[in-house]
Amino acid sequence: MSHNTFGHLFRVTTWGESHGPALGCVIDGCPPGIPLSEADVQPWLDRRRPGQGKFVTQRQEPDTVRILSGVFQDERTAGQVTTGTPISMIIDNVDQRSRDYSEIAQAFRPGHADYAYFAKYGVRDYRGGGRQSARETAARVAAGAVARKIIEGVAIRGAVVQIGPHAVDPARIDFGVIGDNPFWAPDPDIVPVWEEHLEKVRKSGSSTGAVVAVEATGVPAGWGAPIYGKLDAELAAALMSINAAKGVEIGAGFASAALSGEENADEMRMGNDGPIFLSNQAGGVLGGISTGQAVTARVAFKPTSSILSPRRSINEAGEEIELRTKGRHDPCVGIRAVPVVEAMAACVLADAFLRHRAQTGGDAFRPGPPTG
Amino acid sequence: MSHNTFGHLFRVTTWGESHGPALGCVIDGCPPGIPLSEADVQPWLDRRRPGQGKFVTQRQEPDTVRILSGVFQDERTAGQVTTGTPISMIIDNVDQRSRDYSEIAQAFRPGHADYAYFAKYGVRDYRGGGRQSARETAARVAAGAVARKIIEGVAIRGAVVQIGPHAVDPARIDFGVIGDNPFWAPDPDIVPVWEEHLEKVRKSGSSTGAVVAVEATGVPAGWGAPIYGKLDAELAAALMSINAAKGVEIGAGFASAALSGEENADEMRMGNDGPIFLSNQAGGVLGGISTGQAVTARVAFKPTSSILSPRRSINEAGEEIELRTKGRHDPCVGIRAVPVVEAMAACVLADAFLRHRAQTGGDAFRPGPPTG
Amino acid sequence: MSHNTFGHLFRVTTWGESHGPALGCVIDGCPPGIPLSEADVQPWLDRRRPGQGKFVTQRQEPDTVRILSGVFQDERTAGQVTTGTPISMIIDNVDQRSRDYSEIAQAFRPGHADYAYFAKYGVRDYRGGGRQSARETAARVAAGAVARKIIEGVAIRGAVVQIGPHAVDPARIDFGVIGDNPFWAPDPDIVPVWEEHLEKVRKSGSSTGAVVAVEATGVPAGWGAPIYGKLDAELAAALMSINAAKGVEIGAGFASAALSGEENADEMRMGNDGPIFLSNQAGGVLGGISTGQAVTARVAFKPTSSILSPRRSINEAGEEIELRTKGRHDPCVGIRAVPVVEAMAACVLADAFLRHRAQTGGDAFRPGPPTG
Amino acid sequence: MSHNTFGHLFRVTTWGESHGPALGCVIDGCPPGIPLSEADVQPWLDRRRPGQGKFVTQRQEPDTVRILSGVFQDERTAGQVTTGTPISMIIDNVDQRSRDYSEIAQAFRPGHADYAYFAKYGVRDYRGGGRQSARETAARVAAGAVARKIIEGVAIRGAVVQIGPHAVDPARIDFGVIGDNPFWAPDPDIVPVWEEHLEKVRKSGSSTGAVVAVEATGVPAGWGAPIYGKLDAELAAALMSINAAKGVEIGAGFASAALSGEENADEMRMGNDGPIFLSNQAGGVLGGISTGQAVTARVAFKPTSSILSPRRSINEAGEEIELRTKGRHDPCVGIRAVPVVEAMAACVLADAFLRHRAQTGGDAFRPGPPTG
Repeated sequence: MSHNTFGHLFRVTTWGESHGPALGCVIDGCPPGIPLSEADVQPWLDRRRPGQGKFVTQRQEPDTVRILSGVFQDERTAGQVTTGTPISMIIDNVDQRSRDYSEIAQAFRPGHADYAYFAKYGVRDYRGGGRQSARETAARVAAGAVARKIIEGVAIRGAVVQIGPHAVDPARIDFGVIGDNPFWAPDPDIVPVWEEHLEKVRKSGSSTGAVVAVEATGVPAGWGAPIYGKLDAELAAALMSINAAKGVEIGAGFASAALSGEENADEMRMGNDGPIFLSNQAGGVLGGISTGQAVTARVAFKPTSSILSPRRSINEAGEEIELRTKGRHDPCVGIRAVPVVEAMAACVLADAFLRHRAQTGGDAFRPGPPTG
Repeated sequence: MSHNTFGHLFRVTTWGESHGPALGCVIDGCPPGIPLSEADVQPWLDRRRPGQGKFVTQRQEPDTVRILSGVFQDERTAGQVTTGTPISMIIDNVDQRSRDYSEIAQAFRPGHADYAYFAKYGVRDYRGGGRQSARETAARVAAGAVARKIIEGVAIRGAVVQIGPHAVDPARIDFGVIGDNPFWAPDPDIVPVWEEHLEKVRKSGSSTGAVVAVEATGVPAGWGAPIYGKLDAELAAALMSINAAKGVEIGAGFASAALSGEENADEMRMGNDGPIFLSNQAGGVLGGISTGQAVTARVAFKPTSSILSPRRSINEAGEEIELRTKGRHDPCVGIRAVPVVEAMAACVLADAFLRHRAQTGGDAFRPGPPTG
Repeated sequence: MSHNTFGHLFRVTTWGESHGPALGCVIDGCPPGIPLSEADVQPWLDRRRPGQGKFVTQRQEPDTVRILSGVFQDERTAGQVTTGTPISMIIDNVDQRSRDYSEIAQAFRPGHADYAYFAKYGVRDYRGGGRQSARETAARVAAGAVARKIIEGVAIRGAVVQIGPHAVDPARIDFGVIGDNPFWAPDPDIVPVWEEHLEKVRKSGSSTGAVVAVEATGVPAGWGAPIYGKLDAELAAALMSINAAKGVEIGAGFASAALSGEENADEMRMGNDGPIFLSNQAGGVLGGISTGQAVTARVAFKPTSSILSPRRSINEAGEEIELRTKGRHDPCVGIRAVPVVEAMAACVLADAFLRHRAQTGGDAFRPGPPTG
Repeated sequence: MSHNTFGHLFRVTTWGESHGPALGCVIDGCPPGIPLSEADVQPWLDRRRPGQGKFVTQRQEPDTVRILSGVFQDERTAGQVTTGTPISMIIDNVDQRSRDYSEIAQAFRPGHADYAYFAKYGVRDYRGGGRQSARETAARVAAGAVARKIIEGVAIRGAVVQIGPHAVDPARIDFGVIGDNPFWAPDPDIVPVWEEHLEKVRKSGSSTGAVVAVEATGVPAGWGAPIYGKLDAELAAALMSINAAKGVEIGAGFASAALSGEENADEMRMGNDGPIFLSNQAGGVLGGISTGQAVTARVAFKPTSSILSPRRSINEAGEEIELRTKGRHDPCVGIRAVPVVEAMAACVLADAFLRHRAQTGGDAFRPGPPTG
């Protein structure tokens, strides 16, 4: 992945800062002939949009997307389709609340990337976090919407599975109920627990971490590639690149360290439609290549560093200071990360599909008696 | 990362199968004038080498490396240095024990990549795992040896911190003692626990997972880059690409999900040599850019799937079978992964150094009164 | 080069169609701290702008550029500078004259890319040439303006040296006079010849080809790299990617085929400021690396295929047709290519500078007695 | 193209110096299941091999290739096939004649890359030109042999069309006769002219340039891609990267500058098997995409700078010197470039095929009545 571009064949370049006029992305390598209009992208942005509850930032951004290129409404056909040329999408920043940044302009907020940016570049746009703002993830979600259309047979669903110390019981996870609550929780019983926890966090001006799970069903066997193009390595990079991510695991992940070989190796039987696996510790990926099982991953998000408690820090002049982060912030950024995790997974999978089709023609070999 | 190449400016391409005549790597983009001979590479390979204890595979490979290009012994100078041209290194396979593969040639070993390779390519070199063999990691270690020389001020050390369910107490981790035991354990007290566990695993023909930690000290602030070139995203991809890796975390990692914002945000003070941090939950990376703290990561390895217990599977003909994996295998591949984890971290950091130097000239900005 | 991105470290991604709402580019990898505002970019776009004479298309586009990201006006400093994050620039399309495209919507104009796009994608935006329109080159010119600021010591100048069969005498080339005439001619005496030729071409509804020369002075020795990253190979790709380009040569180019080794090899002497060359057949590049001489290249442009004479062709239905290309077109696209050639050379050189700095630290070694 | 890697999906990395132990290449991204053994590669190397006539260098290298990875002889099938993993090929250097390099070790040979390498790297392997030696092209030819197998329906043929000032009459070019003479001449009548010219050049210790033409027939419409991934731009880079290349043109090339729009635009009619073109000024590429016509290109090669006449130069100490280049050298490197030009064209086309298949599935749209 380049600095601001990811993907090999389905390539996404994003740009924009929190308080600039707009942000956006350019998608290169999209196949032609795919029906695509703003109506295909906007719903995914709406899911990610801030200002939708008391546990997310109150900045009001409509996040209206416009497609500037790469699609064409052929008069002879019903709808607008991709042309194979780059798809440029733009989202205007509307609610850059005018405020005084003098307090933080030269200060390094602890836990933020302020100091790292300064050390690297010697200059930074400190308004609203500049390029390090979570607003950048809107561009990822827009790209993910296009990616989903390329791999229409694949269903990608994310859920919050832990907030603070409160994790969902894995046995109770049901992706079917995530839309029924404001936390993308896959278990209704955890909702009141999280509500109470978040209310406490919010009132104290603190913040809390979270874990997001994602699964992609319908991925055929054969996507991904050894050795450094492994599907799980690509997923790891894509998911770790999301703001505040600190860990990524595939399938059983860190728990596999404590497993025995017998527990870990997913056994196989022959089903009516090809091989079936009797478990999915692998998370649908072996040797970096998809197996046809659901691809599953989990991402850990740290608590946002924007908290009201005064914290010790320094400033550009090298002076020691104390700092509180005011402003409109999510107490738990992990919640809003769900659509972003899904989008990144979609982009990685669309890219893997195109790469697989390039090298092999796209067909997977299936066990069975030799034909012909 | 391409299929068999990783890195952007320090680019490593590896090749070779377990039972082919040799394996190797080509390094492109290495700076010129760096003293380099086989003697700089061999010791790292020797650390990774199998056949060094009863808990690792008994295949005997000397893993002798030869440098075929990219270095030059200038008669006017004392030693051999890199020339800036590609460095090709080769390691002959010596101990490809001749055996009968007919049992597994058409069978898919559960938990291995056999089926995934078949589904993708329709053909696979089944001898010793072919390209999916852990022998491939020797090429990574050779590349890592060169990477270390590019960033000589950076010290990279790995350790096993968990085997099976037995984890080292984080408070007792001392990287200084890892060379004193065959497990790269950073706490001598865990050694007898692991020995007992591994002995049980080995006797039962089973296997066990592990967690490897790595830390890089001496990384200056400013390496890495937003947004998709984040240092932690690059590390995640590199470490997840290692055979059997199932999870990667940076700094506090998954534990950060349960932290409060106050606990998570590392506070800063001004030290004599620049900023100092009062904790390192971030693992030395904020916003994808190094902060000057130690860069820390952990990698989870699953137990090898090569176990003696019969397991249910299928074969290429689509028949249901039972399979035991005989042969020379490590009961805990995580142990031998330590030098590989170090090598991948070294390569990522050397690449980040070169990318940083490209964009900024290489100097980091330091807090302090404006000069000049 | 990817489909719509070029450069390795100074990476330019362009997007947009002739009759879409806008076009633009995203620049990734620009060093931080470089003064940059629209005022640095607009003059170069104005040079390229159509509607400036009777020999260029009459489409009226102001080509006003807006910078949407990647720069920051720090209150403490005088002006706006780059921040190291992606620079997104947008140019609105204003004069997409409403017209009836029914005649060409399904027809393949001979000499255009209509058929090739159709064969590849099965769909194309036929309005004004869609993505194949020369309007795309505005985005290149905007990127080139930024590239020039990165390598401020390098002066890049282009000139038309041939229109139709009328070539400038190489001995009379003076880059100092190219601004004095509408053809970027480096010899005033050729101007009336070209005027007469173009008047004839324009009146007959035909078109004519051209050759553009470019030279970059101030390039230090050491930029570029063997083997596939050769500076001349990068230039060749960049220049050949310009619409209507059919040939690229470096230094003596095709003429070197007829030279003897004695004539071709540029001899060296030692000057006060380092080596000097007694000739420049090499065009400033040897072994793919700059020598410190002026880097010189020439690009051949074919005549535009938009001509009034009826030409035989086919349409999407496979029917044989005759076709005339009406509309607003340049009789000689090579003239307007001059700023584009300059811009592409600037981008390639800025990229080479960054790559060189990455691998070597940026300093060139100079002949002389050993120091220290 | 990276420094020592080219291609996007069919990726070739080469390594090795003239006087190192060996040279080679690693091919990544090759489709699986392609029959491949040394017998498929060796004949192409034999065509390129030096020591085959009095007009080429007398260094005797058998150039025997060994495939070290990426192929597998499945016992159940007749022959050896590619597995989709990286193909490593090695060619030992055998005839590195031991000699005294003291004269040139610190001198910069005029017209060679000696000084450029020194300025860039501060160190260089001066033995036989090191990495800048034409021996590197053997690795390209090996890669080209594999590329040809991927696009078996495409026939790629090169020919020398000019040596010194003596060009073949384009009307007399017949690719069918190039094997009948030692110059790859497509016109038997030119052979005695070239023989006389080369004999004179050789006797005087001088050298001469050449132009090589290449054509690829059987390329379907649709390969290549706008804007920076244009097939002609990729070809230009690949061909310009060959040692001593100074110019590249596609189709009519530089001659198109003097054409009228009517002459230049290739008209189309409908043939039995799809569209046919009535001429091929475009060289089979429009808008960067293949049209189904023969893809044609020409490359200019400068005379080698290794000549016996004393030439003025300088050395590393900054002293002015006179230098004659002794040793075993071709008087006309362009002749031996023919197989290299073919190989590079094959690699670019194989890469374009894979990229096209990735984005579109691989089928070309054909004009005709709507189906279904």
